[in-house]
Amino acid sequence: MENPVTILIDTQGGDRGPGAAVRGAALALEKFPLLRVVLAGERAGLERECAAAGMDEARVRIFDAPDCITAADDPAAALFHKTDSSMLGGLAETAARGEIFGMVTCGCTRVLLPAAMRYLSGPERVRPALAALLPAQTGIFTCVVDAGATVDCSPAMLVHFAHLGSALMKRMYGVGNPRVGLLSNGAEPTKGNKLVRETHALLAAEAADGKLDFVGNIEGSNALSGECDVLVCDGFAGNLVLKVTEGTAKRLMTDIVRYARSRHSEEIAALAAHLMSVYDIGSLGGGLVLGVSKPVVKARGSADEQAFVNISEMLINMAANRAAFDQRRIKI
Amino acid sequence: MENPVTILIDTQGGDRGPGAAVRGAALALEKFPLLRVVLAGERAGLERECAAAGMDEARVRIFDAPDCITAADDPAAALFHKTDSSMLGGLAETAARGEIFGMVTCGCTRVLLPAAMRYLSGPERVRPALAALLPAQTGIFTCVVDAGATVDCSPAMLVHFAHLGSALMKRMYGVGNPRVGLLSNGAEPTKGNKLVRETHALLAAEAADGKLDFVGNIEGSNALSGECDVLVCDGFAGNLVLKVTEGTAKRLMTDIVRYARSRHSEEIAALAAHLMSVYDIGSLGGGLVLGVSKPVVKARGSADEQAFVNISEMLINMAANRAAFDQRRIKI
Repeated sequence: MENPVTILIDTQGGDRGPGAAVRGAALALEKFPLLRVVLAGERAGLERECAAAGMDEARVRIFDAPDCITAADDPAAALFHKTDSSMLGGLAETAARGEIFGMVTCGCTRVLLPAAMRYLSGPERVRPALAALLPAQTGIFTCVVDAGATVDCSPAMLVHFAHLGSALMKRMYGVGNPRVGLLSNGAEPTKGNKLVRETHALLAAEAADGKLDFVGNIEGSNALSGECDVLVCDGFAGNLVLKVTEGTAKRLMTDIVRYARSRHSEEIAALAAHLMSVYDIGSLGGGLVLGVSKPVVKARGSADEQAFVNISEMLINMAANRAAFDQRRIKI
Repeated sequence: MENPVTILIDTQGGDRGPGAAVRGAALALEKFPLLRVVLAGERAGLERECAAAGMDEARVRIFDAPDCITAADDPAAALFHKTDSSMLGGLAETAARGEIFGMVTCGCTRVLLPAAMRYLSGPERVRPALAALLPAQTGIFTCVVDAGATVDCSPAMLVHFAHLGSALMKRMYGVGNPRVGLLSNGAEPTKGNKLVRETHALLAAEAADGKLDFVGNIEGSNALSGECDVLVCDGFAGNLVLKVTEGTAKRLMTDIVRYARSRHSEEIAALAAHLMSVYDIGSLGGGLVLGVSKPVVKARGSADEQAFVNISEMLINMAANRAAFDQRRIKI
């Protein structure tokens, strides 16, 4: 039998309150027999929510951390003073316990990234980045990095993102030789703003040294076409790719649903439901913090029950892939 | 009766050759009785194409300009040495002839913008920008500026783009008080990269002085939701908005067509055809050069017959709206 996978869920900081996180955890436990969860938050409230959700108690542990970091908190101050919060306490617990594979939180990215670096930094102590894993047209996943955490970047930072993304795709998704693309406004190497043109030269040099498989510039129209496994960009551009994709998909869905209604077409209504399940970026799992020693997922503030189920599945798959990867490495 | 509208069509520089431009012009002349065209290009070839297309010759004039600027030309060199080309000669002809309302060309943006500034600059001699006019969800048009011409911008340039876009929406689209939005990665004024944060402060100051109606930051998911009439961004981000929108729409279409085929559904095939006509950004007309004294449309290199018809319609509508605007101004 496979080993159980334990994940820590920060139940606070989301728009829908701890109840959504707990109900999501209960659904995930039902769906994934290997899953174990640690719920971080205020104990008494969590116990009530667990009872209400009919949670399988043998597979749940509560980590009492009643303090919460809110949008009103100054990120720098929260980072130093709210160490008993469910986010920072949860990161410390995830770091301390060998059996915890990874963590999920809805909390503020501006606190999460430096906090993840503090508690879960590897020996290299690199600057973390936020990645989004999106299903590409060819069925594979494309890792967009940075997905919105760092909006002003240097060329060296983008090269660093390329390595972080490649490492993720190798270790967690079993891609042997991840193809790295650079988001630009044209395919030719001369295209791009100053940042992109300078980064292009650096990535080409890394490729020449055999350190990366750099496939060149990728245009916005092909961002998620599957031409690369890792799409490198600054956080401002990465945020744009994700949000414009989502906005366009939503708008088309609205048009399709309206068209189905006006024609009373069940066939088209079924199509709309199918497309919504495929293109619901909101439920896709959220961003993944790269550059830390354990997987940390940043869920959206608006994450619902289903988002927690999807993130649990994502972490379980990562655990299985990493085990396979480590196995292969041992064999070599 | 309304006045005729004359447009100059640069028939060279497109991927499909002068034939596509001439056939497009013939279709447009059939569709729009007010239209007159001046075809810029090599005379003998154009005469053959006109005869083949069954063109209404009374409404066509050929402007002989056999030289052509190609992708192989150095932009700066072409700008100074290829003044007999269909693009530069066409701009000079458009500037010289009062009856020519505007011009369309598939030629290279890097030559077109400085050339438009040279031949068609207003008294202020401002730096031109490229705008894309996209149908927003609410049915109105959103002017995205800059749409890809200038990828490295200063805050002052973005403010300039805001004014150019506002002037366009007022004069050519009859929007009384155009709402200006700033593309960012979040709605709050503190969001954005350094460029966007600094631009936000400048636009807010312009709004406080009553010079612009600044509605704040607009996220990528709402770029084309109709929340603003003018969406201000640097050319790199503007290119991303256009290309990601197009890529996502195309991908969804592909999925819908595949779904329709697998279910042999005529209903869904009809839906796909409907959506394609709505979301075909490629046929939308192309970019508009702002900051010059007459409308100049940059069509895509891949522009087909229908693109020339759509651009003709766009220019005819602009002519009608501008006449109405000038009329109103005279009354005041």
